[in-house]
Amino acid sequence: MDIRTPDIAAYVADVGRRARAASREMARAATDAKDRALLATAAAIRRERAALVAANAKDLDAARAAGEDPAFVDRLALTDTVIESMAAGLEQIASLPDPIGEITDLRFRPSGIQVGRMRVPLGVIGIIYESRPNVTIDAAGLCIKSGNATILRGGSEAIHSNQALAELIREGLESAGLPADAVQVIETTDRAAVGELISHPEYVDVIVPRGGKSLIERIARDSKVPTIKHLDGICHVYIDDAADLDKAVRIADNAKTQRYSPCNTMETLLVAQGIAARVLPPVGRIYVDKGVELRGCPRTREILAGAGIACAEATEEDWRTEYLAPILAIRVLADLDEAIAHIATWGSGHTDAIVTEDYSKAMRFLREVDSASVMVNASTRFADGFEYGLGAEIGISTDKLHARGPVGLDGLTSLKYVVLGSGQVRS
Amino acid sequence: MDIRTPDIAAYVADVGRRARAASREMARAATDAKDRALLATAAAIRRERAALVAANAKDLDAARAAGEDPAFVDRLALTDTVIESMAAGLEQIASLPDPIGEITDLRFRPSGIQVGRMRVPLGVIGIIYESRPNVTIDAAGLCIKSGNATILRGGSEAIHSNQALAELIREGLESAGLPADAVQVIETTDRAAVGELISHPEYVDVIVPRGGKSLIERIARDSKVPTIKHLDGICHVYIDDAADLDKAVRIADNAKTQRYSPCNTMETLLVAQGIAARVLPPVGRIYVDKGVELRGCPRTREILAGAGIACAEATEEDWRTEYLAPILAIRVLADLDEAIAHIATWGSGHTDAIVTEDYSKAMRFLREVDSASVMVNASTRFADGFEYGLGAEIGISTDKLHARGPVGLDGLTSLKYVVLGSGQVRS
Repeated sequence: MDIRTPDIAAYVADVGRRARAASREMARAATDAKDRALLATAAAIRRERAALVAANAKDLDAARAAGEDPAFVDRLALTDTVIESMAAGLEQIASLPDPIGEITDLRFRPSGIQVGRMRVPLGVIGIIYESRPNVTIDAAGLCIKSGNATILRGGSEAIHSNQALAELIREGLESAGLPADAVQVIETTDRAAVGELISHPEYVDVIVPRGGKSLIERIARDSKVPTIKHLDGICHVYIDDAADLDKAVRIADNAKTQRYSPCNTMETLLVAQGIAARVLPPVGRIYVDKGVELRGCPRTREILAGAGIACAEATEEDWRTEYLAPILAIRVLADLDEAIAHIATWGSGHTDAIVTEDYSKAMRFLREVDSASVMVNASTRFADGFEYGLGAEIGISTDKLHARGPVGLDGLTSLKYVVLGSGQVRS
Repeated sequence: MDIRTPDIAAYVADVGRRARAASREMARAATDAKDRALLATAAAIRRERAALVAANAKDLDAARAAGEDPAFVDRLALTDTVIESMAAGLEQIASLPDPIGEITDLRFRPSGIQVGRMRVPLGVIGIIYESRPNVTIDAAGLCIKSGNATILRGGSEAIHSNQALAELIREGLESAGLPADAVQVIETTDRAAVGELISHPEYVDVIVPRGGKSLIERIARDSKVPTIKHLDGICHVYIDDAADLDKAVRIADNAKTQRYSPCNTMETLLVAQGIAARVLPPVGRIYVDKGVELRGCPRTREILAGAGIACAEATEEDWRTEYLAPILAIRVLADLDEAIAHIATWGSGHTDAIVTEDYSKAMRFLREVDSASVMVNASTRFADGFEYGLGAEIGISTDKLHARGPVGLDGLTSLKYVVLGSGQVRS
């Protein structure tokens, strides 16, 4: 099914037109029909497990033959666990409330009209992602539930898996009386398809790029369609001198070591000088025990050296680096003002936390740190759609417009004004 | 004060850096300080009326010398009425609730953290507009109240007026202890400044282009910064066959003739065939009496001819034209489905209304018409920040992301997540 289309532009335009047409039907689809499509797809995924594994095997063989590293092959694999989690994910999305059609703030105005806002789908969502085939199902599920049509462009290494999954989604949509074109997978591995997909605001309302930073940067720079994205997750924990020592150690440990690769993992630990000598030795020992490489400012190194803990010298480069690895930058600062300034200068607007028992400083941190998620006395690892109660997420946004932070179903919708009158005219 | 800067790029970068620095102070400014700045500026405008008129006279003289048409000179003039309305506008903005810092939906999650959303400023707003100097005050007022810094780039024909107004705003900000750089007016008439302003996401968070369609199109196409804008206001009223005849005539009259130039004025009247013979003659007579030129489909012309009312032949071009003038396109359609399809094909997503007493059709129109404002039994002319109760508006957006419809203070803000914990870590 890996076709090489001679005229990519015409092919993507055709996909775009079908998506636009399907989006009109999806926008008025009943909740019940959308949920039936999701549940039918979940059932088909469980039923067709063998066929999915067979399609996936083609991708896995090709990836191994191409010499891809084991981590890459792992991400590509549709194991029994991944297949079950895709099906369960769709069932979970089906169980979420339908955001579409909700009317809020409907109020009478002095003119006699009632004005409110109705939540409606964005229209057509283009999703560009790398080699994890489970994203095909997650993204399709969220778009179906939110009444959008979607065009999916997964990594070319997963083309057979994605095609097989797309077939099951199509079947699920049709069984519920919804348009099969509501979810389309780009059927070519030609990279020019991405360029086309991001060039047509008439077909696509928003692009969600997921994957490595260079991919996302390139798409955001070239796209003629608005994007929902995040580039970096340079997350900070600031341990204030009024911090509870136990909470500080627990949070600094968890924010770094619970998992190293997620975007909400702490990359730089900031410590107030008044508490540094008490908090750095115990937390430093935890890091060393867990194999985390430390890079600190001179004061950090001095304190850690006094406790017999090795710590390399940090440079400015460390303040701006998202390691996604067992490496941590540490800086001792005078106070909250310096911490806020450090985060404003070096942070990426993703997730930043303060550990403090001081009410006024907690409030200042919440107000003044301009990031998608700001936290008091909690691990940055909580910045996640499920932990926030969104039920699911299509990604995390560090943009300020539209969706910010974890993006759930609401982030794939828009609010339009509705006016209910009884013949009013303007005077 | 009309300086010609040799290095526009360096000049705009300097303005951008100052704005970014000021935005941090504005984000944490107290409501009281922002309101005092607004009220002080309002008082200064009234006090310095003579100086404003003198500065404005330079612009008016230059415009007349350049042979600008009287309508243009009118828009440029700071009359007593305009000066008073600027001052009153600032006082009105001061009286609005402060949107910043509001926390909503703060809920406990099973992990024990509380998750909510806090409304915060966008940061730096760039506003690009044409020759009306009162926009300088309106835009500055909205940005101050919403805790943003702003860079204003008005039409070069209004440079002296805008400089004089900027001086008063600067004075108002300083008197309230706020940074004077929170409102900066670009001090050069060189057009390259616009190109620079829209090229630096590191200094500017959002661009609001206001003015003619070609200006807005060019800015939206070239901008590296997200924009809040609308291009066209091709607004429709659909008179359903279940319409109340009196309401239909009143709304069709008002939506077109109350004012011809606003973007929320009806440009195409759609009429169900079942009611066309009853509604078109009375409404056609009103239009003719008010000097509105009619352009209709064959069935419209037939009905109007029968009533002795002249109506030219409409072409496809009429369905896609925003006249902003006493010209109206009229089309008779079979039913609601055709009306929805006409609006989807030819509309601009601005404001569309249905006149009907039929509940199900009203609900379908509200749900299925994908415009920023959808109305039942009300004139499209109500699509306006004041009529909607926003208190003020910076413009109307036909984009789907972020702000949609009339954009008030909230449209200049963003929602970030706040997490309140008591030491929680993720397991």
